[in-house]
Amino acid sequence: MNAPRRRLLVIDGPNLDLLGEREPGVYGAETLEAVRLRLAAAAERLGCEVSFAQSNDEGQLIELVHGAPARAEGLIINPGALAHYSYSLRDALAAVDLPVVEVHISNVFAREEFRRQLVLAPVVSGLVIGLGAEGYVLALEALARHLSRRDQGS
Amino acid sequence: MNAPRRRLLVIDGPNLDLLGEREPGVYGAETLEAVRLRLAAAAERLGCEVSFAQSNDEGQLIELVHGAPARAEGLIINPGALAHYSYSLRDALAAVDLPVVEVHISNVFAREEFRRQLVLAPVVSGLVIGLGAEGYVLALEALARHLSRRDQGS
Amino acid sequence: MNAPRRRLLVIDGPNLDLLGEREPGVYGAETLEAVRLRLAAAAERLGCEVSFAQSNDEGQLIELVHGAPARAEGLIINPGALAHYSYSLRDALAAVDLPVVEVHISNVFAREEFRRQLVLAPVVSGLVIGLGAEGYVLALEALARHLSRRDQGS
Amino acid sequence: MNAPRRRLLVIDGPNLDLLGEREPGVYGAETLEAVRLRLAAAAERLGCEVSFAQSNDEGQLIELVHGAPARAEGLIINPGALAHYSYSLRDALAAVDLPVVEVHISNVFAREEFRRQLVLAPVVSGLVIGLGAEGYVLALEALARHLSRRDQGS
Amino acid sequence: MNAPRRRLLVIDGPNLDLLGEREPGVYGAETLEAVRLRLAAAAERLGCEVSFAQSNDEGQLIELVHGAPARAEGLIINPGALAHYSYSLRDALAAVDLPVVEVHISNVFAREEFRRQLVLAPVVSGLVIGLGAEGYVLALEALARHLSRRDQGS
Amino acid sequence: MNAPRRRLLVIDGPNLDLLGEREPGVYGAETLEAVRLRLAAAAERLGCEVSFAQSNDEGQLIELVHGAPARAEGLIINPGALAHYSYSLRDALAAVDLPVVEVHISNVFAREEFRRQLVLAPVVSGLVIGLGAEGYVLALEALARHLSRRDQGS
Amino acid sequence: MNAPRRRLLVIDGPNLDLLGEREPGVYGAETLEAVRLRLAAAAERLGCEVSFAQSNDEGQLIELVHGAPARAEGLIINPGALAHYSYSLRDALAAVDLPVVEVHISNVFAREEFRRQLVLAPVVSGLVIGLGAEGYVLALEALARHLSRRDQGS
Amino acid sequence: MNAPRRRLLVIDGPNLDLLGEREPGVYGAETLEAVRLRLAAAAERLGCEVSFAQSNDEGQLIELVHGAPARAEGLIINPGALAHYSYSLRDALAAVDLPVVEVHISNVFAREEFRRQLVLAPVVSGLVIGLGAEGYVLALEALARHLSRRDQGS
Amino acid sequence: MNAPRRRLLVIDGPNLDLLGEREPGVYGAETLEAVRLRLAAAAERLGCEVSFAQSNDEGQLIELVHGAPARAEGLIINPGALAHYSYSLRDALAAVDLPVVEVHISNVFAREEFRRQLVLAPVVSGLVIGLGAEGYVLALEALARHLSRRDQGS
Amino acid sequence: MNAPRRRLLVIDGPNLDLLGEREPGVYGAETLEAVRLRLAAAAERLGCEVSFAQSNDEGQLIELVHGAPARAEGLIINPGALAHYSYSLRDALAAVDLPVVEVHISNVFAREEFRRQLVLAPVVSGLVIGLGAEGYVLALEALARHLSRRDQGS
Amino acid sequence: MNAPRRRLLVIDGPNLDLLGEREPGVYGAETLEAVRLRLAAAAERLGCEVSFAQSNDEGQLIELVHGAPARAEGLIINPGALAHYSYSLRDALAAVDLPVVEVHISNVFAREEFRRQLVLAPVVSGLVIGLGAEGYVLALEALARHLSRRDQGS
Amino acid sequence: MNAPRRRLLVIDGPNLDLLGEREPGVYGAETLEAVRLRLAAAAERLGCEVSFAQSNDEGQLIELVHGAPARAEGLIINPGALAHYSYSLRDALAAVDLPVVEVHISNVFAREEFRRQLVLAPVVSGLVIGLGAEGYVLALEALARHLSRRDQGS
Repeated sequence: MNAPRRRLLVIDGPNLDLLGEREPGVYGAETLEAVRLRLAAAAERLGCEVSFAQSNDEGQLIELVHGAPARAEGLIINPGALAHYSYSLRDALAAVDLPVVEVHISNVFAREEFRRQLVLAPVVSGLVIGLGAEGYVLALEALARHLSRRDQGS
Repeated sequence: MNAPRRRLLVIDGPNLDLLGEREPGVYGAETLEAVRLRLAAAAERLGCEVSFAQSNDEGQLIELVHGAPARAEGLIINPGALAHYSYSLRDALAAVDLPVVEVHISNVFAREEFRRQLVLAPVVSGLVIGLGAEGYVLALEALARHLSRRDQGS
Repeated sequence: MNAPRRRLLVIDGPNLDLLGEREPGVYGAETLEAVRLRLAAAAERLGCEVSFAQSNDEGQLIELVHGAPARAEGLIINPGALAHYSYSLRDALAAVDLPVVEVHISNVFAREEFRRQLVLAPVVSGLVIGLGAEGYVLALEALARHLSRRDQGS
Repeated sequence: MNAPRRRLLVIDGPNLDLLGEREPGVYGAETLEAVRLRLAAAAERLGCEVSFAQSNDEGQLIELVHGAPARAEGLIINPGALAHYSYSLRDALAAVDLPVVEVHISNVFAREEFRRQLVLAPVVSGLVIGLGAEGYVLALEALARHLSRRDQGS
Repeated sequence: MNAPRRRLLVIDGPNLDLLGEREPGVYGAETLEAVRLRLAAAAERLGCEVSFAQSNDEGQLIELVHGAPARAEGLIINPGALAHYSYSLRDALAAVDLPVVEVHISNVFAREEFRRQLVLAPVVSGLVIGLGAEGYVLALEALARHLSRRDQGS
Repeated sequence: MNAPRRRLLVIDGPNLDLLGEREPGVYGAETLEAVRLRLAAAAERLGCEVSFAQSNDEGQLIELVHGAPARAEGLIINPGALAHYSYSLRDALAAVDLPVVEVHISNVFAREEFRRQLVLAPVVSGLVIGLGAEGYVLALEALARHLSRRDQGS
Repeated sequence: MNAPRRRLLVIDGPNLDLLGEREPGVYGAETLEAVRLRLAAAAERLGCEVSFAQSNDEGQLIELVHGAPARAEGLIINPGALAHYSYSLRDALAAVDLPVVEVHISNVFAREEFRRQLVLAPVVSGLVIGLGAEGYVLALEALARHLSRRDQGS
Repeated sequence: MNAPRRRLLVIDGPNLDLLGEREPGVYGAETLEAVRLRLAAAAERLGCEVSFAQSNDEGQLIELVHGAPARAEGLIINPGALAHYSYSLRDALAAVDLPVVEVHISNVFAREEFRRQLVLAPVVSGLVIGLGAEGYVLALEALARHLSRRDQGS
Repeated sequence: MNAPRRRLLVIDGPNLDLLGEREPGVYGAETLEAVRLRLAAAAERLGCEVSFAQSNDEGQLIELVHGAPARAEGLIINPGALAHYSYSLRDALAAVDLPVVEVHISNVFAREEFRRQLVLAPVVSGLVIGLGAEGYVLALEALARHLSRRDQGS
Repeated sequence: MNAPRRRLLVIDGPNLDLLGEREPGVYGAETLEAVRLRLAAAAERLGCEVSFAQSNDEGQLIELVHGAPARAEGLIINPGALAHYSYSLRDALAAVDLPVVEVHISNVFAREEFRRQLVLAPVVSGLVIGLGAEGYVLALEALARHLSRRDQGS
Repeated sequence: MNAPRRRLLVIDGPNLDLLGEREPGVYGAETLEAVRLRLAAAAERLGCEVSFAQSNDEGQLIELVHGAPARAEGLIINPGALAHYSYSLRDALAAVDLPVVEVHISNVFAREEFRRQLVLAPVVSGLVIGLGAEGYVLALEALARHLSRRDQGS
Repeated sequence: MNAPRRRLLVIDGPNLDLLGEREPGVYGAETLEAVRLRLAAAAERLGCEVSFAQSNDEGQLIELVHGAPARAEGLIINPGALAHYSYSLRDALAAVDLPVVEVHISNVFAREEFRRQLVLAPVVSGLVIGLGAEGYVLALEALARHLSRRDQGS
């Protein structure tokens, strides 16, 4: 009998619904839909299930994070610019007991000064920054492997 | 004939719906529901009516504050981490003509550096910090007594 | 045959629904409704159509900005206190390809220190600050003239 | 047989001997003597004994804190302006094994910038700020209830 | 009998004599002379008289401001880079009892860091920033309408 | 009949008892005793009485300030290095209703960086800095003339 | 035979020509002319000659300072707001070999934050701050006595 | 005929030779040797060749970076603590025309304040932070895929 | 005939009377009495006499320092937390002509941020930090050897 | 036929008219006249013509810069202390299309902290600092060679 | 039978090879060789063996620290100016499990501002600062006694 | 008989071995070899001997500086990015008794913020910045003339 497949959740924050349209020189020309297809394919390859959510609203994102443990064993979050000031989202991430990888498509360190402050970062497991939409796939791989190792360890 | 009972409103901000579950070492093991029962009992004892609202959403919290004067003569707010950056919530509090007590369950000064910045504090009447869920009860007592004195003064 | 009329959109942020009630010494006694009437009259005079939106919610404001290109050729935004910290709203404004004028009713430089930080300002076209509700009208005129010149240039 | 009554100590720091005379617009018109009577009445009501000390001298305040465990089970301290720079008083508070509530009569966050730095705060249990002389009573209640719960827990 | 026409004064500071020549990508290709003609036309339309002065010298600008009440009922000033450090010019503006609108042709917030400090701004009535040479016209309209309302109010 | 003579009080803070011995290159070779004789002579000349106090102890200085209104109509204070951090002494000075002149013998702006922060200065009437022991005499003259004008005004 | 009278020079900087008109709540109602008469009388009493200069122009003030040694043995300067940023005027003062007293009519420490930076102060002999127009007279006395002592010492 | 295999270079900086021994709670118990084996296996799987270098010396690391284009098409660098101050290493990375991924084993944002400054980050392509030794593998995959896409694009 | 024995003075500041009781994890379990015995023994061994003083009061500590030259040829001071803000104590130390060694029992650099500011340090001869109570003995040895060398040099 | 000689302009700012008199320990004993003779000789040697201007007035310096392209192909400027705050002079230099070398006689980095801020530097071609009056000659050589290379390149 | 002698290692960083030649007013006239002889004598007296290393190279110093546990039971390090920025050396010290005493010959707090930042200090056991070359001897004594106590405790 | 020729040493720091290859838009297309030939020619013309050294290693650079007095009478150093943080190299330069000119090829003030901090600058004689490779030649001329004047002065 097969083990149930691992479930992962990918949450995107403000303005990521515009991916592919907004400043393609910075964020690439791939739409969020295309990124999700790529992630679904990678999940398939890794034997995981991946679900997706996006919101432009801090409050809804907090609730998506609160609800994450019921939906998934690991969380990927691209918080958009909330990364730079949303201590409320930080507290939400600190409150849930899940491994979290924060993803930024562009290299935030090579842009405006304010993007160097990453207020969620101290409470996530790790970060993938500046590697484009591929960064989500890497985060997925990281979480999948982490969960495998954890289970094998138990 | 009896005087109408005083009405007070308690507003809780982001992540306080998780009270009792989230980092109990920091915030205690009592749930928000239990805190509200404790507050209702205290209100009863003080001859007040207390109503409650919670939201994880800054926009909704602003509207709860806007609506507060229609529902209450005094306001208790635990803004969660919005305390540290939400100038919009600050402006909402400054806009309504109500006594406001800001409550923080944990001692924000004994935690991360960013929690020492309290951007709502300059526009509230007072603050109760680090006294646990009991802090809400103290705030309730403070408001009830304040309103009594104000009315006796008129 | 007449040219289609230019469409402009005016977005107001947190607490501006209280205009006229809130701190009239700072923001004036005119309500948002009255300001809109004044703007509609000015738009009429300038041969434009103007539509309006207000929200106390950062997430909804971001979506209003995302939807602006479908509704208008130019955008006026009074972000309220979000002007001082909402990098998410900034990213939304940077993402849409519209001329934007940021309006502040009061002179933010003559008030609290935190109001001197204007995080949206680097991505808008221009700002009108401290000229009261009249500032919206000036912004409307600026956009109308800008669009005229642009079209005449083409 | 009755349990011995709980003993609490209230220490006031520099300039609080002038209470009622000094800047009544900021600190209220009630004298320290009147506040103490109010506190004694509240203590009576709570079944506690309360004793009082005031000094304008950092060194004496440190010694009052050192001596507190011999006199009381809980400590209320209004450090006056020492709150903003006295790391020696902070070390004294950290050295004694007592629950401590720091009280400020006025809302220090609504005054000069320097009053936003609270150097004792990280080592106290909690703070009551800006609630006037009533703040002492609230602190007393907080300590009395805390000690009750602690003992019932044992 | 006609009311005397309103008089307004437009003062330009350092380097604005080079308008149209200097960095046209930043400041536009219109010369100061052309801007003045545009302003004179707008003044005509608004039933005002407008006079002009320009100096590269802080001392002369201070004296132009001192003399403004004798020449005009309202003042438009583009202080050039003095906006960022001339506390003497600020004191001059604060000393005269005239409504003042500060104009910046380019969006100072989208340029070098030092241009974000606007030391005159706290003492002017309002600012028009980043709307090109048209900003002067908007300032003129703002002042003209302000003076009309003021007089109608009396 | 003669008017009673004006009484002034001169308070010296930490280390000023060493005047004349301590770093004479910085503070001059005149002892505190000699300075007081000079001041007494000046007071005589001005028709005032002057009394003196010195303490190395912040607490005693606060109490000297508290007691000043009972002893004098004007206060001269050389706070020594307490000028740079004693917010408690500041609060004491703010609490008493007396004209106060702060004196520093050496030019504090020409010495270490920390001496540029003068935390009492915002609550005193004026300051005399860097003019040597003569600064006390000037402060005395300033106060004497101020009191004369005030009384003549009444 | 009489010794030649000591000559002193009083230089006033930007906006001090408006003394008595400008913000009398801050600077008093006495005009610069009246202050000069008062100073001349004091000089007469002290057996000095005093001459006066005022300019709103940093460049002219620098040249007045350069020329001071030819006109006077001591210099009193009220630099107005140049005190807060004119490193050029500072260098001029450092370059001339004269005792200099810097005067500020108002208490700059009790006003805006930027007025706490005094960039000339490290190169002057001393400062008289916040003692009103009387401060000039005190500075005159200080310089006169300093020069007397210096000459008696030689 | 087979295409030549892609070559990648992994450079480790100061103290990474101690991996597995040094603070295993922070950096994990796996040695650098073991990490390299894991990387070699991953490279094999991805059809790449990977070579390795480690140095505790900034100068040698600069030369390793200079020599990288001759050895590899992509570079992975874990700069250790040089990440926080070595502007020389930054200039070396900026000077070579290679895609670079910076790896940190631990989450530098969750540690000491100084580790939040990442001075190389603005000149690298992307970063993988806090994902343990697995981070190197992810970086390898990122580079391998990037190079594939680049070549397919040509 | 024997030379008179060298006399050294050890001054301890606020809270050091609690040594051995207060936070033994930080300061060790040895009491101040025990440390003094250890120091007396070391002094005996080095042929010195050592005397001791402790105060929790800044003012008394200043006077102990003033009196030190009459009692000793060298001074050891553990200023407790006064090290971080007492510019008055600093001035006292600068005023006396004695070699001074500042001792801190714990490693102040490994604790809270505020303990990294050492305001007395620039005026002492040297510091011994973080070496426990043994640090006093080392300071004693340093002073004894320094005085020996100095005398042998004369 | 000979090519016309290259023309260069040397502008000196505030206080440089005092060269040779003012703080010779810092600026050397050579007068501005002597420096100019040295420069003229060097220009002769390099086949250039050099003209000179000096002003203590920011406004005149701005106009000298504006007029420079009509007089010269290259500009040497010693801005004196304006280097540290004159953003107006910076804008003037940025506005003219000439190679500019900024010269400082003394090593500004070895003096007061404020001299480390060089606000013109980002818009000049290069700087020669701390090499005495010889620095002007080096700047002249740099410009002469730069212009030669530029012309040979065309 | 004798216990094996304790081994201690003394590492000196950049520029300490110049000891005795370099700025003898700051660092004394004793050469590093002489200091080592003094240390060897002290070690002999304390029954220890001491070995020495010096390097001007951060990389070599890191490797010396890595190798220290194989050579010694305690480490004395004078990091020279690396103390102020070498986070790599800090990590090396944190990685080895040895008691470490950091020595500075001069009083770094009495010199340039940048020397007040001690980045290694949080990870060493203790520091001896400003006590000259004797500081090494004190550090040796401290380590020797520490190791004795540790062993006696086991 | 001829005087021996003056010897000068030119030291280049990290990444300058890449000159001509690395970011030619910033540093020019001339290689280090070419620059050295140009310098040798200039030296020949000036009757000097010039030798060269380059290293990417801070430690080697320190030793090159230590050895400089044995090889040369004057030193030219382009420290590369070590200019911005290497306090060790600064101490080395301060330790040797040679005139030193620091050269930067590009205008460091027109680049990233971090390049504005020049930590070696306070201990060198002078700087030539932003004048390209020609800056080395100017530095050579400056040193040659300085040494000539020095010798003629002796």
